[in-house]
Amino acid sequence: VADQAFVTLGTDDVYCQGALVLGQSLRNHMTSRKLAILITPQVSSVMRAVLCSVFDEVIEVDAIDSADSMHLALLERPELGVTFTKLHCWTLTQYSKCVFMDADTLVLCNIDELFEREELSAAPDSGWPDCFNSGVFVFRPSVETYNRLLQFATEHGSFDGGDQGLLNSFFSNWATTDIGKHLPFIYNLSTSAIYTYVPAFKHFGRDAKVVHFLGSAKPWHYKYNSQTRTIMQDGSTSGSQHQYSFLVLWWKIYYASILPLLETLPEMEDMESQGQKDETTHLISELSTQLELEEPNAEEERKKWEEGRMDYMGKDAFEHIKKKLDTFLK
Amino acid sequence: VADQAFVTLGTDDVYCQGALVLGQSLRNHMTSRKLAILITPQVSSVMRAVLCSVFDEVIEVDAIDSADSMHLALLERPELGVTFTKLHCWTLTQYSKCVFMDADTLVLCNIDELFEREELSAAPDSGWPDCFNSGVFVFRPSVETYNRLLQFATEHGSFDGGDQGLLNSFFSNWATTDIGKHLPFIYNLSTSAIYTYVPAFKHFGRDAKVVHFLGSAKPWHYKYNSQTRTIMQDGSTSGSQHQYSFLVLWWKIYYASILPLLETLPEMEDMESQGQKDETTHLISELSTQLELEEPNAEEERKKWEEGRMDYMGKDAFEHIKKKLDTFLK
Repeated sequence: VADQAFVTLGTDDVYCQGALVLGQSLRNHMTSRKLAILITPQVSSVMRAVLCSVFDEVIEVDAIDSADSMHLALLERPELGVTFTKLHCWTLTQYSKCVFMDADTLVLCNIDELFEREELSAAPDSGWPDCFNSGVFVFRPSVETYNRLLQFATEHGSFDGGDQGLLNSFFSNWATTDIGKHLPFIYNLSTSAIYTYVPAFKHFGRDAKVVHFLGSAKPWHYKYNSQTRTIMQDGSTSGSQHQYSFLVLWWKIYYASILPLLETLPEMEDMESQGQKDETTHLISELSTQLELEEPNAEEERKKWEEGRMDYMGKDAFEHIKKKLDTFLK
Repeated sequence: VADQAFVTLGTDDVYCQGALVLGQSLRNHMTSRKLAILITPQVSSVMRAVLCSVFDEVIEVDAIDSADSMHLALLERPELGVTFTKLHCWTLTQYSKCVFMDADTLVLCNIDELFEREELSAAPDSGWPDCFNSGVFVFRPSVETYNRLLQFATEHGSFDGGDQGLLNSFFSNWATTDIGKHLPFIYNLSTSAIYTYVPAFKHFGRDAKVVHFLGSAKPWHYKYNSQTRTIMQDGSTSGSQHQYSFLVLWWKIYYASILPLLETLPEMEDMESQGQKDETTHLISELSTQLELEEPNAEEERKKWEEGRMDYMGKDAFEHIKKKLDTFLK
């Protein structure tokens, strides 16, 4: 189905690795739809090349320059910049219908049936269940809707400062009007829900179709032992075998399909310069380095990581990379 | 409307005090419906008399003896005993339609419009939002439904060991079939949701109609200063002014309307014996005593309290009660 697509968003190289695993998980389960990713300018050229091997379309969006209406809106409400990035998905009018999925989601089976749903279909948020969670939603690209969203955002802002608050205010009848627009929770099973109502997870969790690593601990924040195929656990995961199995699955896909892409890329014909080779090696090392951070500064390092602030002169310097790679990939 | 009722459940004297505050809150907001309470045998005779002054009907249910079908069911699955107590609400066939409310809920405004909804209407559970929370639900009493529920329970049990798991399995199409049966979350706003998605609470919480003190910390577990009309806070409430205001409201109703009932009752004509007088005084003192427990054994004491195991020979002995009352009610 060429005019329908799964759409995700990569705001930096780290989240793009999440997006790659998501994209690969969709491919592994034989989706018949296109895969598209929106990226922001700070995504590196090497990462863009890797994204092209998993996604059918890699589309750069720039919060400031991409549209006059966006520009004006952001002048009034600069704090909505990140929120607005996701809204760009409505501009993908080459598609008649899309399913948006956050880069921290993972598909467990074929979910193409979601395209039978109408805009705006989404699963309830487990924190405030009259809101939908904006990590997975069905939408129809439309410039008109896009402009109305921008207009609404500048007039009303977002009650939570993010896209979820904005989209829930805009599609405000979700909770009360059409049960068909309530996706079953198993299409956006937030890992935090596993803790808040364990018996329900044990009863319904086996039917999970999409898992959403909600919260600050993303799969790429854990340490993975590729030899034993296990994750070095800290306190936060020890409580749940189920959460653990989702993390292992994420890493299994990362190692089987994404890491090889990052490794082989510098040998591609159009990627011969040493500069780009370094960049690729660097990409791999970042994840490895992050995974071996010790506790004391882990949170601070994670924050930097998520903000895309790499330590090019320090721990991420080239001499460290080679050493890490040797021990990590042997 | 004489053939419709709000129904609650009191499984011991402590929960009955929650039920009294709930009942009073419904009266304060001028409900046009009857108030009914199901109680179990361990509720004291004094408490029953107090309940009669707030509720139109006080109905003792006994998990073992009230019905042959119940008896048989429990022989097979004794662990479902507590669950089955709530199911008795379907036997109240003197009413055409009812709204069940847990004893740890509190009404903030008139909610009689709930009777326009059909069985089984309920609000989503914030832990697993494809389940409804069974703290507030609209139902139609029916012996047939009651028997089918018992039958279902003995065959399938309850996935969470409680009434919520059972009712969700029985009314299993709630999540997918009729949006009209999804009560807005503001009709069963679990206080835990205030923490999990603060921005949503700040945005939607002002419309709250029913608050549900979900979890182990019930309003009657806090210490209240009746002079300053404030609650002595521990760590668990310091995070939220909103949660705090709901607690203060509960205690305000308790002090204004429920405590006077407990105090004046022994002077009622049919309650002259010294034995019953002691029992009443004891009731009041229990709450006061509980509130002044020191930290080290608070959790253990709370557990005993919730299980209805009072320390009649120790801290709850009569000589202690008088002293407590003097300092507390002066």
